[in-house]
Amino acid sequence: MSARIPQETETRMTHQHGYVNDKEALLKRLRRAEGQVRGIQRMIDEDEYCIDILTQVSATTKALETVALQLLDDHLNHCVAQASHEGGAVAEEKLREASAAIARLVRS
Amino acid sequence: MSARIPQETETRMTHQHGYVNDKEALLKRLRRAEGQVRGIQRMIDEDEYCIDILTQVSATTKALETVALQLLDDHLNHCVAQASHEGGAVAEEKLREASAAIARLVRS
Amino acid sequence: MSARIPQETETRMTHQHGYVNDKEALLKRLRRAEGQVRGIQRMIDEDEYCIDILTQVSATTKALETVALQLLDDHLNHCVAQASHEGGAVAEEKLREASAAIARLVRS
Amino acid sequence: MSARIPQETETRMTHQHGYVNDKEALLKRLRRAEGQVRGIQRMIDEDEYCIDILTQVSATTKALETVALQLLDDHLNHCVAQASHEGGAVAEEKLREASAAIARLVRS
Repeated sequence: MSARIPQETETRMTHQHGYVNDKEALLKRLRRAEGQVRGIQRMIDEDEYCIDILTQVSATTKALETVALQLLDDHLNHCVAQASHEGGAVAEEKLREASAAIARLVRS
Repeated sequence: MSARIPQETETRMTHQHGYVNDKEALLKRLRRAEGQVRGIQRMIDEDEYCIDILTQVSATTKALETVALQLLDDHLNHCVAQASHEGGAVAEEKLREASAAIARLVRS
Repeated sequence: MSARIPQETETRMTHQHGYVNDKEALLKRLRRAEGQVRGIQRMIDEDEYCIDILTQVSATTKALETVALQLLDDHLNHCVAQASHEGGAVAEEKLREASAAIARLVRS
Repeated sequence: MSARIPQETETRMTHQHGYVNDKEALLKRLRRAEGQVRGIQRMIDEDEYCIDILTQVSATTKALETVALQLLDDHLNHCVAQASHEGGAVAEEKLREASAAIARLVRS
């Protein structure tokens, strides 16, 4: 991944992902979720009470769910909306992809 | 609802909902889910074993989830795709609505 | 199921399920959920708007979830608590069963 | 937290949490989940494709769910089973606590 060829980077830069304006907010949430997961490890390591640990796990799961819904929202509003605007096979493929991602979220 | 005025029906018929081609499959699934909910009532009524009842409740929830994902898929592929193709404020509103429905599903 | 032999019925009546005191409340919730599932069928039949139908599906799923949590709570407080009080292999089996039911709920 | 007084440590050591035998497995899973959350941050930082990021978020959520179910299972099999064996108000409190934790998990 570190050895991306220049063209790829260029192409990538011409296409803006849906979440581009939410990047900072998303990263902030994820850093907090990362801290929560580390906190859970410390709780287990220090033999804290099971129920308190479970509360932290539920909170972390909810935090990740919020990240997922934000990403999906951005994706629908940008990538999918743009592809649908253009129509054709790409639009259909984008919608199929989005539906599959939603199903994974709902079932996870 | 049974006293709809003709115009409404007419307007309704000019717009085809996304799920129009899946109607029979959706109704079949829902009739089965209805039977499952009745079955759960009977199990409780006949004092069946809690764990067996819980298994039925999980199965019914999964069946409804499948109905929801099908409806959402149809909605994205028709209503949302069409609105996005046309663009503008309606498209934005449709996407906002779809995102909210997805969030409700993921959190339910 | 309708041809249960008398002994079984007898045994059943000597053992009270955990949900025995919540039976009426549970049945009431389930009758309402059944009505909701029928309502969803009617909405599809009358070509109502996809998003409104999805809202009803989410509400029904939540209602069933509440029934499941009540049943599980009763089960833990009666069957599992009693088996644990007595201890031994039956207690272990009850706990294994309850854990599996919880996993199905969390993942459904 | 690093300056725990001896007595606390002592008390803690006399009570073994349910997850004591699964500690290494739980910590291993959590370290992997932490790595996944960091991976998601890097994906966003490097502008990777939304759907690929969502796939990683779903996988991480599932990993945390597995941790939660293991913790809960251990808790029921040890703390709750032991309290139920002894009976009384403590048993009731443990069961109430466990039910609340299960509800949070199912709804998260």
